[in-house]
Order: sequence, then C-alpha cells, then structure tokens
Amino acid sequence: MRVMVTGANGFVGRQLVMRLLEAGEVRGRPIEALLILDRQLDGLPDDARLRRHYGSVTDPALLRRALADGVDVVFHLASLPGGAAEAQYELGYQVNLQGSLELLDQLRNPRRPPVLVYASSVAVYGGDLPLRMDEDQPCSPQLSYAAHKRMVEIALQDLARRGEVDGRALRLPGIVARPREPNGLRSAFMSDLLHAYAAGEAYTCPVSPQASAWWMSARCCVDNLLHAAELQAPGDRRVWQLPVLQLTIAQVLAGLQASLGEETRACISFEPEPQLEALFGRYPALRTTQARKLGFCHDGSVLGLLRNALDLPPRRGTAATRKGICA
Amino acid sequence: MRVMVTGANGFVGRQLVMRLLEAGEVRGRPIEALLILDRQLDGLPDDARLRRHYGSVTDPALLRRALADGVDVVFHLASLPGGAAEAQYELGYQVNLQGSLELLDQLRNPRRPPVLVYASSVAVYGGDLPLRMDEDQPCSPQLSYAAHKRMVEIALQDLARRGEVDGRALRLPGIVARPREPNGLRSAFMSDLLHAYAAGEAYTCPVSPQASAWWMSARCCVDNLLHAAELQAPGDRRVWQLPVLQLTIAQVLAGLQASLGEETRACISFEPEPQLEALFGRYPALRTTQARKLGFCHDGSVLGLLRNALDLPPRRGTAATRKGICA
Repeated sequence: MRVMVTGANGFVGRQLVMRLLEAGEVRGRPIEALLILDRQLDGLPDDARLRRHYGSVTDPALLRRALADGVDVVFHLASLPGGAAEAQYELGYQVNLQGSLELLDQLRNPRRPPVLVYASSVAVYGGDLPLRMDEDQPCSPQLSYAAHKRMVEIALQDLARRGEVDGRALRLPGIVARPREPNGLRSAFMSDLLHAYAAGEAYTCPVSPQASAWWMSARCCVDNLLHAAELQAPGDRRVWQLPVLQLTIAQVLAGLQASLGEETRACISFEPEPQLEALFGRYPALRTTQARKLGFCHDGSVLGLLRNALDLPPRRGTAATRKGICA
Repeated sequence: MRVMVTGANGFVGRQLVMRLLEAGEVRGRPIEALLILDRQLDGLPDDARLRRHYGSVTDPALLRRALADGVDVVFHLASLPGGAAEAQYELGYQVNLQGSLELLDQLRNPRRPPVLVYASSVAVYGGDLPLRMDEDQPCSPQLSYAAHKRMVEIALQDLARRGEVDGRALRLPGIVARPREPNGLRSAFMSDLLHAYAAGEAYTCPVSPQASAWWMSARCCVDNLLHAAELQAPGDRRVWQLPVLQLTIAQVLAGLQASLGEETRACISFEPEPQLEALFGRYPALRTTQARKLGFCHDGSVLGLLRNALDLPPRRGTAATRKGICA
C-alpha cells in the first residue's frame, strides 16, 4: 500500500506516522511507501518506507509529485488552526480551503478511488449550540477555519457519492495534550492546563471551572483516524462526529488531582475571557450513535483521557487500559 | 453606482439587466455603469451605461479587469446548471465553485464591502425531504451542482460575518418559463410543460401529475434579486430560502386550463422518470417566515405564476397584478 500523510510533522501527524510505521500495514496489506508531506519533517525517524515531501499543501506541483506513483490511503491533517486562520485569512483560505480542494481534485479516480481520511473539526457547528445535540446538528460556522472545514466536508461527501474519492471526514474535538508552544489554536488552553498541572506550575485558565468542552487524547484520535481508514464500505454518509468526552474544567481538575495528587492544584487560577468561554466553554452533551455503531470511540473516562494524554502509567486495580476504549 | 451582473446573457440575467436599466437606480442612487459579464452578450440592448465583458467567471483576469474601477453591487447569476454540471464535473467545478470563490475573493473589501446577491438553489437540500419543512432544513446535496452552491453559500456567509463582502444568497426554486432550448437543467420540464400547453403542442411530461415542485416566474425572481440588493443591514443570517409556490403538475395544468382554455390539454401525456420524480417531484410544503419578514415573495397564486411566466394579460375581475405579490 502507498499511504500519504499531510501535516505529518504536526502533533497528531507525528503520532499517526509512528503508529503506521509500527503497524506496518493498513487495510490488511503491508505499507510499501509512506509519503509524508509537511514544511518541516524533523520530528520523524529514519525509515526506508518514508518518502519525504517538503512543502505546503498549497503547492499543487508538490502534491502532483507526491502522488505521481499513485496512492491508496491518504490522511489529510494539514491545516492552519482556527485562531491563526481567523487572523491570517488569506493563508487560511489557501491552506484550509484551496489546498484541501486541490488535494481532493488530484485524488479523483473513478476506477480505483483512494481512501481519504480528513481531519475536520467540531468548530463547524459554531458557538450557539442546544443543550443536547446529536450527529445531525446543523452547522453554523463562526470562524473562517470552520467555514472552510465545512466546505471541504461537503466536497468530500460529493466525491464519495460520485465514487471518485473514498472519503471519510472525522470531526475532531480538542486534542490533548499538545506541546506547550504557540500553535494558533484557540483551544490551546485545554492542553496548557494539563501540562501546567503535571509540571506543578502556575496557570491562569482563560475559561471558568464550569466551562464544558469536548476532549480527546492524541492517542485516541490516532486510533480513530486509523479506524476510519480501515472501514469497508461505510455507507453513504461520509462525515462523522467522533464520540467525545464532555467534561468541565472542574471535572478535568478533579481527574488531574486523582491522577497526579493535589499538591499543585492551588497554582491554577481563572480569568475567563468571554469570547473564548462562548466558543469553547459551552459544549453540550453529545450523542454519537452512528459513529459508535461504526466503531469510533473516545477515551472512556477522564482518568483514561489523562493517562492517554499525559502518558501516565495505568492505575492498579482499574480495568481501563491506556489505549482508550477502542483498544 | 457601479453594478455588475454575471451570467448577464442568461434567462434570468437578461431580464435583470433590462429591469436595472429601466429603473436606472439601485439602493437609492443612479446607476452610472452596469458591468455585464457572459460568454455572449447578444441578447442585450445598446445602452451607454452597459460595459460588456465577454468571457467566463472561471477567468480571474477577466474578473479583475471588470472590477478594476470598483463595484458597489454585484448580482452573481453565472452557473452551469445541475444536469450539465453532473455530467461535466470539471467544468461545473470551475464555473460553479472556483469561479464563484474567485469572485468572492476579489470582492473582499473591509473598508467598503460591496453588496453581493448570489443566486443559490433549492437543490442544496437534496432529495430526501420531510413532509413539511422550513428555512432551517439541513442541507444534504445530492448533485455536484448543489454541493458547490452550498459551499459558496458558506463562503459568502463567512465573508459577510467578517464584514468584507455584504453578501446575500437566495435559494431559487424552478424558474419558469425558460426558453425551449437544451439548457442542462434537470428541472427544464417545468418550463417545457408551460410552453407546450400555451402553444397547443403535444408534450410528454417526465414526472407524474402528482409530482409536487416549487415554482416561481422569472419576473418574481428578478423582483426578489432586486429586493435582496436593496435591503439595509439585513442581519447576521445571509442565506435565505425564497418563498415558493408549491404546486403539483395537476394544479399547474388546472391553472393552464383556466388561463388558456382546455383545448390543448389532451396533448399532455406522462412518462415519469423515477430519478427525476425523486429529485423534482416530491418538494414538500415550505414555511419561509424569515424570508417573508424581510419582504421576499412568490407569485401569489398559480394564475399569478402563469400570467408572470407566460406574459398573459391580467384577467378581468381579479385583484392579482402581473407583477406578483412583491409589486
């Protein structure tokens, strides 16, 4: 199999590449070539199967070179995050919309449609959500990032309907725990809180303890991306909301205390920013019946989330595994 | 005011251009230049205000030339119809999606956002509609044409939110009575039926008498496009479902009989095509509370629709006007 990963040097991309190399196969056949595409690729090991393509998805010629010998499975993770895309509209338009459309266009192949797993985002729903929601919630994007993700979902669904690209779009929640570096993500506080607590450092949380968000570890996220690629004939609908853990900041802090001890808890203070609280602090209960039926998963519990996200050892006497409920 | 019309030589485009020239003003100010863009422009009169730009919206340089001296109001009507876009995917992708995105991108102007009226389509909902629906019905496009229209709606809504383009998208139903020529529209039968009845010719209708569709005359459609341009500060939501007349073929035939006499009725026979019946024969009752509140309209009645569509004289003793309920 020839497999491609865009955004391969990103937080999720690196873990996905490592897991693909470890597994050595996808859809029951060995991986002969793993095409990795990103502006830098320094976070990845030497491996004879890796083919490095340096550059951006905004470069059609780079995509054509990478895809010249064909491809069977593509994971399209490259994107400019929401905060950065809102501030740098033109760049977000090129990366998140036009780069994705160009990739989809180059992948069209009615005789042998490649599998495309696309990392979409829960941002597509917008901020004004009902108290309970399910997978059929209408989308009302309130960021350009979200508008462009939604547009690409529609293009992917259309090419799947036409039988030209075997697309599968997953709406990802906040993925933790990202490295503590400026990354243009408005939801960065979710990871920063975990790292700060684990390190025993002071942290000013920009949302309130009552703020309710949707959480997933990178490990569980990679489980889901791989699972999406494995699905055989998943039906007409090709855009799925992943199951999520809906947790308040207070619940996450209680989990951190149970996992790591409470000595550092006093270092966490709160200065809620109204706009951030509105966008990331009011995520409601979410039913994901269809995604669960297809075998997608979340981390199982707040303790499972924290173990997976912070790479903690499993607790003795608990049945939960380190790999989330997918494993 | 500098006004632009794309698709100016089309069925609706020509009538819109004529109405703009007659009115001589838009948004309370005189029209100094009316930029008309299409591959042909032979259906339009000589008028000193007209600036002819020959070509396609898929040509970014043409758009730049047309917009070089600025623009205040744009009517974006150019599109490859649904049937043609499904068969010629690449051309539909360039015209309906990329051409529209390029136009939106060139119109961005945060200091003085131009008004953009975009002709979207009821095709965005897809074919599997509930028995009753309203303006919040989720979209589930089942044609590439519809997918691309929906994507452009989202881009327009996003640029309106950003204050860079003052966009207004209208979802149009089947517009009658189009000229009897191959036009790539799957809904062409709606116009063909009217022309055939009026001409007393035999016609084989490809949907059943029970087929229920949404109807609007071109005159009423132009009323709505002009109204959309006139609205001042229409609020956050910028994608509106126009009010429609929901009529079965049988109701339209009864209206034709009342308007034109029944001598030709026997010439109409039926050979329903299942796919066409599924796409265009099951349009349900539709509530458009928000669009009506904003002043959008339909033709008032089947008789009003036929008068407006076939340019019939008004009936004595009826209060209905020839200009639909907008007038």
